[in-house]
Amino acid sequence: MGRRRGEFERIELFTRGFPPPPPGVRLGIGDDCAVLRSSPGQDLVVTTDSLVQDVHFTRQRFTLQDVGHKALAVNLSDLAAMGARPTWFLCALELPDWVDDRGLRALADGMRRLAARVQISLVGGNLARAPVLGVTLTAAGQVPQGRALLRSTASPGDKLYVSGTVGDARFGLEHHAPPGPLLRQRRPQPRLALGILARRFASAAVDISDGFAQDLEHLCRASAVGARVELPLLPVSGALLRHAGVEAPLWAARGGEDYELLLCIPPKKVRAFERACHKVGQKVTCVGEITAPPRVILLDAHGREPTGLRGFDHFAPRRSLHRRSAGGRA
Amino acid sequence: MGRRRGEFERIELFTRGFPPPPPGVRLGIGDDCAVLRSSPGQDLVVTTDSLVQDVHFTRQRFTLQDVGHKALAVNLSDLAAMGARPTWFLCALELPDWVDDRGLRALADGMRRLAARVQISLVGGNLARAPVLGVTLTAAGQVPQGRALLRSTASPGDKLYVSGTVGDARFGLEHHAPPGPLLRQRRPQPRLALGILARRFASAAVDISDGFAQDLEHLCRASAVGARVELPLLPVSGALLRHAGVEAPLWAARGGEDYELLLCIPPKKVRAFERACHKVGQKVTCVGEITAPPRVILLDAHGREPTGLRGFDHFAPRRSLHRRSAGGRA
Repeated sequence: MGRRRGEFERIELFTRGFPPPPPGVRLGIGDDCAVLRSSPGQDLVVTTDSLVQDVHFTRQRFTLQDVGHKALAVNLSDLAAMGARPTWFLCALELPDWVDDRGLRALADGMRRLAARVQISLVGGNLARAPVLGVTLTAAGQVPQGRALLRSTASPGDKLYVSGTVGDARFGLEHHAPPGPLLRQRRPQPRLALGILARRFASAAVDISDGFAQDLEHLCRASAVGARVELPLLPVSGALLRHAGVEAPLWAARGGEDYELLLCIPPKKVRAFERACHKVGQKVTCVGEITAPPRVILLDAHGREPTGLRGFDHFAPRRSLHRRSAGGRA
Repeated sequence: MGRRRGEFERIELFTRGFPPPPPGVRLGIGDDCAVLRSSPGQDLVVTTDSLVQDVHFTRQRFTLQDVGHKALAVNLSDLAAMGARPTWFLCALELPDWVDDRGLRALADGMRRLAARVQISLVGGNLARAPVLGVTLTAAGQVPQGRALLRSTASPGDKLYVSGTVGDARFGLEHHAPPGPLLRQRRPQPRLALGILARRFASAAVDISDGFAQDLEHLCRASAVGARVELPLLPVSGALLRHAGVEAPLWAARGGEDYELLLCIPPKKVRAFERACHKVGQKVTCVGEITAPPRVILLDAHGREPTGLRGFDHFAPRRSLHRRSAGGRA
C-alpha cells in the first residue's frame, strides 16, 4: 500500500489538472459551495448517479481509471438523454484504505480525460472514508429553455430509434468477453452530440442504462403509450453476434449499461433525422414504433413475444440472464 | 428483516410526501434529469456531502430518521454559509440489505421533515445496493447575483462571530452524553436564516463542520489573513461547561459537526449586525478578530496558546481528542 495524505492534500491531488472553469462558474472548488450563473434563456438539467465497488464494478475487472471514467460517463449519458450540453459536476468520493495516493490520481485521471473531452468543469465535491469505494457524481448541463428532451412526451406513430449497438456492455461481463464488449463495459461513451442533435427532431428520449426492454418500458409508461419492436432489428456488434448467434437480439433487448439513446422521432421528421445523423457519422437504427397504450410488444424473428426481457433491478430477487420467467414484463 | 420492494417501488416509497416542487423546478423526479430554471438576477450555489455508516454515524447511536435529517442538514449548512436560500436537492442512496422498506420510510421521513421546514425540493436521485448505508446529497440554493458569502474575502480588523454554541456535537459522541449534546450530534440545525441575514453585514463566512479551530484556519488561509481569538469567549452550552469545566473552551475550539456559522463582520457594521441578530433571536458571540497574516492565534485564559487544536481530518492518522501534539496547528 502506497502513501496516503491528509484530507485537504488529497482534494488538491484529485482536482489538479481538471479543465479550467468556464465563465458561468463564478466560484469553483475551495469554498462551502460552488457559485454558478446560468446563461440567459437556458434551462439547467441535473442528475446524480453512483458507482459502488462490488455492485457496479470489481477491482478484478476495472482499473481505477475505468472507475473514474465510468462514474462520469453514466452521468453524462443522462445529460445526453435530455439533449443537454454538459456544464459542471460535483464529485463525492467514498474512499477505502486500499485507494492510496497513486490510486486516487488514477481515478482522477480517468475522470479528467473524459471531462476534458466533453468540456465539463469539476466545481466541487467531498471526500469521506468508507469500507468500499463509492463514487457519486452530480452533473449539470444546459438546454435552451423548454427544449429538454423528456421521456414523457412520445406519441403513437413515432418511430423508435436506437443509437450505436446494444447488448455489448452486458456481454462484456462474461468470463471470456472479447476486448470490444469489455471496453463497452468499462468505458461507456455517452452520446452527447447525438442528444444535442436530436433536440431538433425527437419527441421523446431516454438513455439505455437498465437495458433496452426496461428503458423502453419506462419511456412508454411515462408517456402513457405502447410500443411495437422487432427484436431482430436491434443493432448488435459483430462480437455479440458471433457469441450469441440467434440469441443476440435477446441479449440486446436485456442488455444493461449500454448508455445508448432511445429516441422517438415523429414520422414526418424521420428522413431529416436520418440525414442529419448520417452527416455527422452517428449510427442510428429504427427498431419499431410507438403505439396506442398500453402494450409494449417485443417480437422475435418468428413473430412471438419472448418472456423474461426485463433489465437490471437493484433490488429485485437475483435472476440469471438466461432465465425466462413467465412473469417477465408487464 | 422486513419487506423490500423492487428498485422503482422503492423510489416511489422514498419520494412520497416531499414538498411539492416550486415554479423554478420545470421537471422533478422521474426522468433522466431534473430540469430547473434560475430566477433572473440570482446565482446558483451548489454543494455535495455524504454520510457513511460507521464513519459518520453508527446504527447504535443513530436512528434512520436521524441519518435522513443529518444528511440534509450538513448540506444545508454549506448553503447557510454562503447566505443562500435552499431551492432543490438530489439524493443518492447506497442501501445495504438491513434497510428494509420500513427503514427506507424512516430515512425519508427524517429528511422530509427538514426539507418541508426549509422549503427545499427533492428533484431527483439514485438508488444503489451497497455493503453499508451511504447517503450523498447535492443541494442547491440561490443568492442575489454576486452576493454569495465567501470564505476568501475576510479583512484584517473584521470582528469574528460564532453562532449558537460550539463543542456540543462532539461532546454528544461521548459515552454518557446528556440529551442536549446528543441531539446536537444527531440532529444539527443549519443556520439558514442567519446566513441570509448575514449577507447584509458579513465580509466572509464559513460553516463550522470540522471544528472551530480548523474551519477558522480554512477561512484565514483562503482570505490570506491571520486571526486572534480568546478561547474563553467561545460560546458553550451549560451541559458542556458542567462536563468539561475549564477545558470547555478546548472542546469548543476542537469540536466538529457543530454546523454553526463563523462570520467576519467589518467593525463599522458590528452594531447593526448585533441588533439585527438580536431582533430575530439569533445568538451570535464575538470571539476575536481578523488580523494581518499569517498567524492564527488562539489564546486560553492565561494568554497562552494551547497546542493540538486541529479538528477532524478524514485521512489523518487517528488522534485522541485529548492528545496535545506539539505539531498541532500551523
